[in-house]
Amino acid sequence: MHTALSHYQTRVNAALERIFDDLPVTDPRLLDAMRYGTLLGGKRVRPFLVYATGTMLGAKEDDLDSLAAAVECIHAYSLIHDDLPAMDDDHLRRGQPTVHIAFDEATAILAGDALQGLAYELLAEAPLPAALEGNRIAMLRSLARASGYQGMCGGQAIDLASTGKRIELDALQQLHRLKTGALIRSAVEMGSYGVADLATEHRDALLRYAEAIGLAFQVQDDILDITADTEQLGKPQGSDQAADKSTFPALLGLDGARDAAQSLYQDALTALAELPYNTEHLQAFARYIVERGQ
Amino acid sequence: MHTALSHYQTRVNAALERIFDDLPVTDPRLLDAMRYGTLLGGKRVRPFLVYATGTMLGAKEDDLDSLAAAVECIHAYSLIHDDLPAMDDDHLRRGQPTVHIAFDEATAILAGDALQGLAYELLAEAPLPAALEGNRIAMLRSLARASGYQGMCGGQAIDLASTGKRIELDALQQLHRLKTGALIRSAVEMGSYGVADLATEHRDALLRYAEAIGLAFQVQDDILDITADTEQLGKPQGSDQAADKSTFPALLGLDGARDAAQSLYQDALTALAELPYNTEHLQAFARYIVERGQ
Repeated sequence: MHTALSHYQTRVNAALERIFDDLPVTDPRLLDAMRYGTLLGGKRVRPFLVYATGTMLGAKEDDLDSLAAAVECIHAYSLIHDDLPAMDDDHLRRGQPTVHIAFDEATAILAGDALQGLAYELLAEAPLPAALEGNRIAMLRSLARASGYQGMCGGQAIDLASTGKRIELDALQQLHRLKTGALIRSAVEMGSYGVADLATEHRDALLRYAEAIGLAFQVQDDILDITADTEQLGKPQGSDQAADKSTFPALLGLDGARDAAQSLYQDALTALAELPYNTEHLQAFARYIVERGQ
Repeated sequence: MHTALSHYQTRVNAALERIFDDLPVTDPRLLDAMRYGTLLGGKRVRPFLVYATGTMLGAKEDDLDSLAAAVECIHAYSLIHDDLPAMDDDHLRRGQPTVHIAFDEATAILAGDALQGLAYELLAEAPLPAALEGNRIAMLRSLARASGYQGMCGGQAIDLASTGKRIELDALQQLHRLKTGALIRSAVEMGSYGVADLATEHRDALLRYAEAIGLAFQVQDDILDITADTEQLGKPQGSDQAADKSTFPALLGLDGARDAAQSLYQDALTALAELPYNTEHLQAFARYIVERGQ
């Protein structure tokens, strides 16, 4: 698992480096901020899902590079904006100064904005084999839907509105389905568009897998915020509690949250069992999600 | 001219209202902010260019609604973010409180982000006649390119970096080509994709027209910032000078700037003269751009 994760991490980082290298230097500071915010580190969970899903179905890694990079650009933009003083006001991300600290606030806003545009530009311009040309619009639609009002932005807005309030479990699940789940789902969907003729029921099973691991990812994040130390997290331990955010452990208890993560892990495996492909990497990834930090 | 401008203004506003009405109310405050920032008023210059270009070439207005709305969503997002305290720190826009004043800063950041995503979602999902399906990717590419690092965001970054410095005329032109020109160009290009089979030389002529009026628009804005009163502008008169921004009148003098606007107007007409279509509306629009506020 760690070999595959690290292989695709290296691969998408190289693709992103090439993309930034190819941009004209119209504004060096903005370009630096875009690069810094994207290449600061990170496990590359979403690119991994694009590659692992796509190659499992028979896609070539080369045809998935732009797709994986586009999803990561959206993720990077969301982190840059979420860290802003008016949002979560975080100074550290992956153990490094956040973009508005390393640069300035205006540059951070613009770098996020430009990374969002870049994601769609990459998808619109990705070199794709002719057989996949018919999937390009579906890819663009998936990413736009996942990142906007009905996805990530909507989730972050609900998160901000919920801070300091106790919300119910179904509201918390809905929040995370939008805030982090939608983009993880889109990463798997993007990978599924890396082949021309996937059966609808197989795409549906993949999306159910994605929804389960997306939520499991957040549940485990909430658990780690309590149990891991600052060095492991790359941000201050207990920052959810400090920010008075509703979390799964707060609603379910620590054991209840661990049970929920295990249950979602089983849901993910059940969905994969419907697929006539070698789902080994995706299984291992689901396990990695719920075992991370232990 | 004013009849056509007002006709398309009403039309795109109705399209935008429908789009917002159709979104699920997952977060009412975010949705309100997106709607407020988009429907606050405004001449709808970019939607006009989509409609006027498209219909001139033979496109149906119905097929242009989503295209015009998508371009306006990008414009609206850019205004919301440009007005933020870390950027231009404007409290008034079109005589009304800006989004971060009427709502709050986090909501303004998210509303802008979500409007950018919505623009691509609209283009990916726009109902298009089969003959135009082949243009959809070109539309998406045009908008993504115009709004990102190599367009609007890049221009705003250069603008912020240039504030308080005296920059040369070609740098000022480049700044505005990116900051406002790129999206105006994309609006005309979008309209040109409203028909299936436009000759390349005719699209090129339209783009030269768009580049000329895009720059003329900014030159005239700079002139009006000096000569118009606050009520006409919807923002404080003299705000460019107050913000210590380089402007065309500052570099060329007021008469020199007026000459430059006239010269760009003539460039626009020259480009239109190459087209075997009824360019009356586009001619009138170019005149409107340079006569506005007089």
